[in-house]
Formats: sequence, structure tokens, C-alpha cells
Amino acid sequence: MDGLLIILSGFSGAGKGTLLKKLLTDYDDYAFSVSMTTRSPRPGEVDGKDYFFVTREQFEETIKKDGLIEHATYCDNYYGTPRDYVYDRLKEGKSVLLDIEVQGALQVMEKYPEVVSVFICPPDAKVWLERLRNRGTETEEVIMRRVNQAKREADFIDRYDYVLINDDLETAAAKLHGLIQARRLATSNQTAFIEKITKEIKNI
Amino acid sequence: MDGLLIILSGFSGAGKGTLLKKLLTDYDDYAFSVSMTTRSPRPGEVDGKDYFFVTREQFEETIKKDGLIEHATYCDNYYGTPRDYVYDRLKEGKSVLLDIEVQGALQVMEKYPEVVSVFICPPDAKVWLERLRNRGTETEEVIMRRVNQAKREADFIDRYDYVLINDDLETAAAKLHGLIQARRLATSNQTAFIEKITKEIKNI
Repeated sequence: MDGLLIILSGFSGAGKGTLLKKLLTDYDDYAFSVSMTTRSPRPGEVDGKDYFFVTREQFEETIKKDGLIEHATYCDNYYGTPRDYVYDRLKEGKSVLLDIEVQGALQVMEKYPEVVSVFICPPDAKVWLERLRNRGTETEEVIMRRVNQAKREADFIDRYDYVLINDDLETAAAKLHGLIQARRLATSNQTAFIEKITKEIKNI
Repeated sequence: MDGLLIILSGFSGAGKGTLLKKLLTDYDDYAFSVSMTTRSPRPGEVDGKDYFFVTREQFEETIKKDGLIEHATYCDNYYGTPRDYVYDRLKEGKSVLLDIEVQGALQVMEKYPEVVSVFICPPDAKVWLERLRNRGTETEEVIMRRVNQAKREADFIDRYDYVLINDDLETAAAKLHGLIQARRLATSNQTAFIEKITKEIKNI
């Protein structure tokens, strides 16, 4: 059986990255979709692992060939999800985790109605804001930019299939894995079995 | 949070009843929907536990009052699912399991689009037929009637949300419980939380 395509979005700092890493570490079922970007690698970033680093020309060529599932521009740089990479993992039976923003997520939902989309939320906005501030790595200006982004994103939560409250990492990861497993039992993901059993029954 | 309404259908002898009992025994989350019927109680059957036994007049009165979620006629007797009983359990937070045939299931799906519908299948038609025969309690004629019913039902499997293969009882029960738990995370079942977090974020 092919793997499932899974969108993970969520408010910045809701713990999406940690959840994603936990799933990749704890289970064999998953693959992480490596994005393509035109921005320069930061120290320590590995091409093909953190991102596929390409030139603007290569990126635009990939768009032209319809080689991206979704793409967007941030701070004058392109970011996108390479189609071939995702398809190869799905064929291997891996469920592919896409860590993408709302705008990209909406593009993917439109193109792939079978996608499983999950929006990750903090249990509480106050706790969330405190966590953002307590990291101590960002200026108040950056934090408020994140808050404003979250205000825009909140209007799109109901476009997602599932809302996952990330209160405790262990619990949230188990729930996330559980809902993906459940999705494998969806009728739309079992057409081969349904055909088989129907044929067998009708041939009695 | 209110409970979920869950339809369990499946080929006769696919183990639906055993699965249902296991869920009711193993978890506190569930309630079984007791059907209303005009047929006479069999020895040992308890009114209000196995069925609500009523007269034909009482049943027709209940239909008129729109007091049934679905109903059907088998062998000149009415069978139906009382609305109030189901609603009361849902309000208590219990997920209500409806053990109903395909025709009743389609009625419920139409009236309650939020219902979770599961079709239970044997892994293999040959094994299934052997199991039916090995019970030794039914004539070949009764068995063939069940087979013919299954042939008609097979055409409706894809109207259900999920297909659950009942190979091993423990595994199937865990999967069934898992998919119901996952469904609680569906956006449509979390409107109260979404409103809360959205309001909080927008008020920062």
C-alpha cells in the first residue's frame, strides 16, 4: 500500500518541528519531505537533508515543469515541495510529512483531496506567548510578527481535517500517529481490498 | 464534549457483535443503541436491554413523531433506532454504537453527515463462508440467504467512512477504538476549541 501524504501546519512555536522529529524517530512509517529553496545554506545545513539548495533559475525551471506540489515566496526566496521526492517516498510505502505554511497547505489540499491535513495548536494562547518569549532568542518585534501571522492563520484552521492540541509531546505524538493509522482504514485508502472481497463474495 | 454517533455494519458473521461487545466491555467511552421492535421477545431477552419491545401502534406513533433515527421492516416486524435514547447517551459524552444494516445505515448517513460509519469485513470470503458453515447452527438455505444478502451489501461498502478487516479480534477492536478516537480530533468535532484559541490569539 502506498503511504499517505500528510500536511502539518500550526502556529509558529506550537511544537510542530519537535512533533515531526518524534514521529520520524519513533516509527518507521514516515519520511520527511525535504523542501527546495533558493536561499543560501546556513552553517551546518546539509543539501538534500535540510533543503535542496538550488539557484533561482533551477527553481523556476522546476515550477515550469510542474515539478513542485506547492511553492511560495518568503523574503525574496522561493520555497517549494518537490513532487518526485514526495512520490518516491509514497511509492516506498512511507507516509510523507509536509511541514508547510497555511498558503502552501491550501494549494496541496486543492491538488490532492486525499491529503491528510493536521493543524497543530497550543492548548492556550497565553502559554504559547510565554513560551515564545521565554525562548529568549528573539526580539519582541519578531515575536509580534509571529503573533500577527498566527492571527491570519487562525482563520484557516477549519480548512484542515484535524486539530491537534500539543499539550504534552508524548500524548500529542501518539495522537498524531493514531490519526494517521486510522486514516489508512478510510474506505478511499482500501479500494484494492474492497474490490478483492466484493469479487470473492459475488463469486460464491 | 458530546459523544460520537457510530454506525457498525458488516457481512453477517463477520464478527460485528463480538467486536461491539468487546468495545463496550473494554472501554467506558461507549454505549450501545438499544433498538425498538414490534417482534415478540425471545426467551431470555430483556426489555430495555436487548430491545425496546413495543406494539405496532406504539411503533407507528413513534415514526409519526419523528422519534426514530432510522427504521426498517424485516419479516413483517418493525425495527428502529429511538432518537431520544441515542441523544441522551451522546449528551452524556458516550459514543453510541449503532449495529444496523446497510439500508438503515444509509438513512442515518443522510440525516447525520457527522456520523462515523464503519463496515466490518472478513479478511477473505472463503474463510468467512467456512466460519458460517462451521457454526453448524444453520441450514445451508439460511447460509445461502446470508451470502446473497452479502452480495447486495458489497455494493455499498464504499458509502462507509472506514473498512475494518476483522482478522483478529484484539487487533480489530484496537483499530476500531483508534479510529473513533482519531475522529474526535476532526476539525468538525473541535469547533469549541477552535473558537476559543482563535479568540485568544486575536486578542493578543
